[in-house]
Amino acid sequence: MRATVMYGAGDVRVEKVPDPRLLEPTDAIVRITRACICGSDLWPYKKMERRETGRRMGHEFIGVVEDIGAAVRTLEKGDLVVAPFVWSDGTCVFCHEGLQTSCLHGGGWGSPGVDAGQGEAVRVPQADGTLVVLPVGRDDALMPSLLTLSDVMGTGHHAALAARVAPGETAAIVGDGAVGLCGVIAAKRLGAERIIMLGRHADRVALAREFGATDIVSERGDEAIERVRELTAGLGAHSVLECVGYQQSTVTALSIARPGGTVGRVGVPQDATIPMAVETFFRNVTIAGGPAPVRAYIEELLPDVLEGRIQPGRVFDRVTNLDGVPDGYRAMNDREAIKVMIEL
Amino acid sequence: MRATVMYGAGDVRVEKVPDPRLLEPTDAIVRITRACICGSDLWPYKKMERRETGRRMGHEFIGVVEDIGAAVRTLEKGDLVVAPFVWSDGTCVFCHEGLQTSCLHGGGWGSPGVDAGQGEAVRVPQADGTLVVLPVGRDDALMPSLLTLSDVMGTGHHAALAARVAPGETAAIVGDGAVGLCGVIAAKRLGAERIIMLGRHADRVALAREFGATDIVSERGDEAIERVRELTAGLGAHSVLECVGYQQSTVTALSIARPGGTVGRVGVPQDATIPMAVETFFRNVTIAGGPAPVRAYIEELLPDVLEGRIQPGRVFDRVTNLDGVPDGYRAMNDREAIKVMIEL
Repeated sequence: MRATVMYGAGDVRVEKVPDPRLLEPTDAIVRITRACICGSDLWPYKKMERRETGRRMGHEFIGVVEDIGAAVRTLEKGDLVVAPFVWSDGTCVFCHEGLQTSCLHGGGWGSPGVDAGQGEAVRVPQADGTLVVLPVGRDDALMPSLLTLSDVMGTGHHAALAARVAPGETAAIVGDGAVGLCGVIAAKRLGAERIIMLGRHADRVALAREFGATDIVSERGDEAIERVRELTAGLGAHSVLECVGYQQSTVTALSIARPGGTVGRVGVPQDATIPMAVETFFRNVTIAGGPAPVRAYIEELLPDVLEGRIQPGRVFDRVTNLDGVPDGYRAMNDREAIKVMIEL
Repeated sequence: MRATVMYGAGDVRVEKVPDPRLLEPTDAIVRITRACICGSDLWPYKKMERRETGRRMGHEFIGVVEDIGAAVRTLEKGDLVVAPFVWSDGTCVFCHEGLQTSCLHGGGWGSPGVDAGQGEAVRVPQADGTLVVLPVGRDDALMPSLLTLSDVMGTGHHAALAARVAPGETAAIVGDGAVGLCGVIAAKRLGAERIIMLGRHADRVALAREFGATDIVSERGDEAIERVRELTAGLGAHSVLECVGYQQSTVTALSIARPGGTVGRVGVPQDATIPMAVETFFRNVTIAGGPAPVRAYIEELLPDVLEGRIQPGRVFDRVTNLDGVPDGYRAMNDREAIKVMIEL
């Protein structure tokens, strides 16, 4: 089969790889119908050191179950399924607590011996714990929004939960990428009264407003902090969703949190330390978040997608096929596209 | 009157200062009957640069109301009162939210123009919002425990709340000083089933056990982390109370938190950054805490003290008078004493 492999910064190729086959009785083989490129895929696209054996890419996909191992109980051949961005057994202590990203027997797509999402097919370990059956046809019009349940919508939701977004309160979102935009959806869904988006790209800001942002702050750095303070009577936001991961965006997020407020971080941190240890301490600002246990959120968010109450699929502003994946990376990295969907 | 003044690291003097007098109609004058030395007083004792005009010290006290301003409504002359370690108006948005440490019109004892606690008397700004009347006589046997409501017991309670200690779960306490010991009391009070104290001083560890610690980890650094993991089936603690403030103790606290767990920090951070940004992210560890809004906790904890269910006053292992304050600093800094009470 063909799949996406990265060999170094900027070097993404689609090439022939071994067909997946069942290795464990808990495996399933899934023929992928939709996949996409993640903002977090851009970190290696910017930084990865060149190497001989490439790295399989992609961790968001929908597909059709093609085969199942002898121990798989909840899936049948022909099921349309969505996969979270990590696989998990569904039975360990952390899975029971809804923290499938810390599953004791789970792991990441593209890790050694495991396929990844930007390809034609994938062996899914721990298939019962990982996959969720979708009650629609494979070319349903809702496919883009359903695909976001694989990562980006669940990640925005996690940011909002981690930031303790609550009805009637103020949420601010740092980062106008696809995750930040889904953070707006999540904040509105959880009842935030005021939703401040920090962003400056016209198309993203426009989408943020449609998703429910009530205020846009297009300034950066200290000016952005000042502007959010003005908008919040000098106090800051109860909840801040950090959807970038840079030190600068983290400083902004921590600075605009109100005393007693919470920053929910879902941007993968690019630095070894969290800034502002003393300032956040004296304001009793809580720092929460991490990789989203989207497996826990699929069932919660699915009815809202199926019934059209949320439309996270609108973050996809470009569609391509497998051959178009390398250019999709380039387009997202150049900020030509917010998020690229891959149709197979 | 006489009060404690610090002029630089290691230089604590008791000297004559102006008598306090009412300046604002919301002020009260309190004649101090009990005060104490705080672990946080040791930071300037270790580090303060020498200066001409000293710094008034002390932020924990009980005393008798000697005079009140015209606007004071809830206090009468002769009332025995306990003061939180910051003063607050009790009416602003943060006071209403129970975060009096961020009061819009509050401040700290010993700040310019404001008296401090290690002296004979004090002008209390915002007296209605700040002081809590105690329903006992000034020499009641419960005086040590009541005095801890000024800071150390409320701070241990805040650490436990921030760390989300919950019934049946595991709490770990980093720091065997008076705050850490009160953290043990607080963790037990909130229902923690297992309470792991990281400490190595025999007297403190013994007291921790009496307060409810179920396990003692006397190792340090990586060995301590390893030992806590062993005690928790390799998972770590749900809740960790960071009661020191050094980078090393913070690394320990963050390392022993289980995935999805929370570190409640009440030790004043001595570094500009929080370590382990990436590791805590990938484990979804929450970092919370800050200065304790003890004013919010006095009413909650007072019945437990009055009815003898908790005995935080046992952290005082030395009693002195005002003249003995400089030696009290020395004794705490040399770890001869856990916490020193001052009788006036």
